[in-house]
Amino acid sequence: MSEGTIRMIEKRIGILGGGQLGKMIFQAGSTMLLDISFLDKSSDYPAGLITKNFTEGDIANYDDIIAFGQNMDVISIEIERVNVEALKVLKEAGKDVFPSPEIIGLIQDKGDQKKFYKDHGFDTSPFILVDSTEDIYEGLKNGSISYPFVQKSRRGGYDGRGVAVINGQNEIHKILEGPCVIEEKVDIDKEIAVLVCRNKGGEVAIYDPVEMVFDDEANLLDYQLAPAAISRDQNINIHELALKMASKLDLVGLLAIELFLDKEGNIIVNEMAPRPHNSGHHTIEACYTGQYENLLRAILNLPLGCPDIISPSILVNLLGSPDYRGETVYSGISEIMNLRGANLHLYGKNETRPHRKMGHVTILHEEHYSPHESKDIIKRVFKTVPKILYNE
Amino acid sequence: MSEGTIRMIEKRIGILGGGQLGKMIFQAGSTMLLDISFLDKSSDYPAGLITKNFTEGDIANYDDIIAFGQNMDVISIEIERVNVEALKVLKEAGKDVFPSPEIIGLIQDKGDQKKFYKDHGFDTSPFILVDSTEDIYEGLKNGSISYPFVQKSRRGGYDGRGVAVINGQNEIHKILEGPCVIEEKVDIDKEIAVLVCRNKGGEVAIYDPVEMVFDDEANLLDYQLAPAAISRDQNINIHELALKMASKLDLVGLLAIELFLDKEGNIIVNEMAPRPHNSGHHTIEACYTGQYENLLRAILNLPLGCPDIISPSILVNLLGSPDYRGETVYSGISEIMNLRGANLHLYGKNETRPHRKMGHVTILHEEHYSPHESKDIIKRVFKTVPKILYNE
Repeated sequence: MSEGTIRMIEKRIGILGGGQLGKMIFQAGSTMLLDISFLDKSSDYPAGLITKNFTEGDIANYDDIIAFGQNMDVISIEIERVNVEALKVLKEAGKDVFPSPEIIGLIQDKGDQKKFYKDHGFDTSPFILVDSTEDIYEGLKNGSISYPFVQKSRRGGYDGRGVAVINGQNEIHKILEGPCVIEEKVDIDKEIAVLVCRNKGGEVAIYDPVEMVFDDEANLLDYQLAPAAISRDQNINIHELALKMASKLDLVGLLAIELFLDKEGNIIVNEMAPRPHNSGHHTIEACYTGQYENLLRAILNLPLGCPDIISPSILVNLLGSPDYRGETVYSGISEIMNLRGANLHLYGKNETRPHRKMGHVTILHEEHYSPHESKDIIKRVFKTVPKILYNE
Repeated sequence: MSEGTIRMIEKRIGILGGGQLGKMIFQAGSTMLLDISFLDKSSDYPAGLITKNFTEGDIANYDDIIAFGQNMDVISIEIERVNVEALKVLKEAGKDVFPSPEIIGLIQDKGDQKKFYKDHGFDTSPFILVDSTEDIYEGLKNGSISYPFVQKSRRGGYDGRGVAVINGQNEIHKILEGPCVIEEKVDIDKEIAVLVCRNKGGEVAIYDPVEMVFDDEANLLDYQLAPAAISRDQNINIHELALKMASKLDLVGLLAIELFLDKEGNIIVNEMAPRPHNSGHHTIEACYTGQYENLLRAILNLPLGCPDIISPSILVNLLGSPDYRGETVYSGISEIMNLRGANLHLYGKNETRPHRKMGHVTILHEEHYSPHESKDIIKRVFKTVPKILYNE
């Protein structure tokens, strides 16, 4: 990385987190000639693969963020588990911090998120906040909690962790420790995500909602369809919801909103993330302007790019094989490349773990083509093979 | 760049040349987790912006290429002005060199190129080879050369340099020194380019022909349309020509073929480049699989990606302002970003020169949209402003 490069805009952008989302932010930024640096534990992380502007440090550590942020003009995140106090101080000191520390703080606490939805008139499943497992047992006794219910840890949950679905008394061993949200279980018809981007001047770009089909056993995404197969009215209502949410939050940057459609067609807010999101990976190839580029445009207060779809797509995550942990060799790549319209993204994580996100494939498709068949092929062929076995 | 990253394929890819084509090769490769290094004069060049795997050296120098290539498994080029002898030695030593040194050698000499077209039955404008300006004067006297004619230096021409169009005796001062090709001037209706990719196993992907509209004064591309507005039959004939050319050359990698359609509809081969090409920039966003990714797939003998168009596009080069040379500040970026479907690529060249390629914009468009209007806006707003003026 040449330090002396003349940039499109002479602003230093610092991103907290250097995983795959950071890598894809950097890729979008390198096309536009932006100056982007990362803070995260190890420069072996995916973003470290494509830039040497990588500072090793802890994004949960106050001092590390202050030291990193002092050299930046604009600070953003690729993950919300960051030290918010440090971001507040940097914002006070005149740095552009997008999304705002206040939004990040709100998102970090699923209890506060739920209160925000309720206070601002967004439909969300009925809930109570409890401090301990004792409170749950008490609630079950006195009838304030009833089966089936969903328990979410207020802090630290991620990718299916920190969430328990308790269908009856026989599943009570799954209850998690600590302060949490107890929600009524929604009778889900579809899970939908919508991505909204807003710049400092208030310009908004809303991506078409996508449909996420989950593997119930692993509580992980099986595949994603874009656009979602929903009615025109639902589409409009979800766009309006996203617009209102971005406005109420005074968002600058990206916000992914995960929604349930229940069996009666109601749109129910589940949770949000104020950053690039897995549900927007397809936008790189399938939309006029991808989420990563629009994030950068937004935080630099440039005009936003068009979020419309160029081509329908299906997205499949490439997950670490369930039976292996350690150094990986990738397997099945040739078969994936053989699929028409397949865009392979490998993130560059040296260690594979069961169900770890190692990459994704976005398949662009036309009418005379079966994306579902491709999805099945990808899920069958992709494996992270133990290096020791591969070398034999 | 983490040295220890586990790659999709454990092969080191070395690219001769580190300009904007190299940068875009690297971007495609980083998504697929490939290990790509560059050789060129300065790591300040565009590819040096996104990787530290950049060796400073001269791609015309035998020793520099040998030293660089020894550490690689697969060697390719982003520009054809390289030392072919060194590549032959590396190939002999067992390295994969694609395109072959023989193809690169053929392309380096426009006289040999013309003989190849003639020998293999490709239509090309009638020509003679001459060694000096005296031969041209002699030819004009004895009638073997007549006005108007096109003179092309056999070696070293690039981007409109090394080409003179001599319409009559009053333009004879434009004649170039040295060995050259003298061609009959074609009565051009359209200038077309077609891009073909072929892997080691013989699999071929052919991109739809594009139409290049030239600015006659500067002898530079004004804009490019993809797909070209040509008949179905012309399309088929050009595909067949590309397929035959790739086969006759035993090509592995990419080949861009520039063609003339004359006023009678004949398809005439002008010249070729065995590498990623400006006429294929749009394929990054506008095709299922872009030229850069397909080059990498081809030289690694992976299945090729689908070259079909997802969306029509118009491409405009961002050229250095005609009145300025030196350190640049970019101007007009916001206006470009405001255009629906515009994809901005800035290459990262610190020094601007008159008409230097500083970047390009690919505009994806739908029916209800005027790409030509956008093209005019881009050409009006983009400027490389002298830094010294900008700071005042």
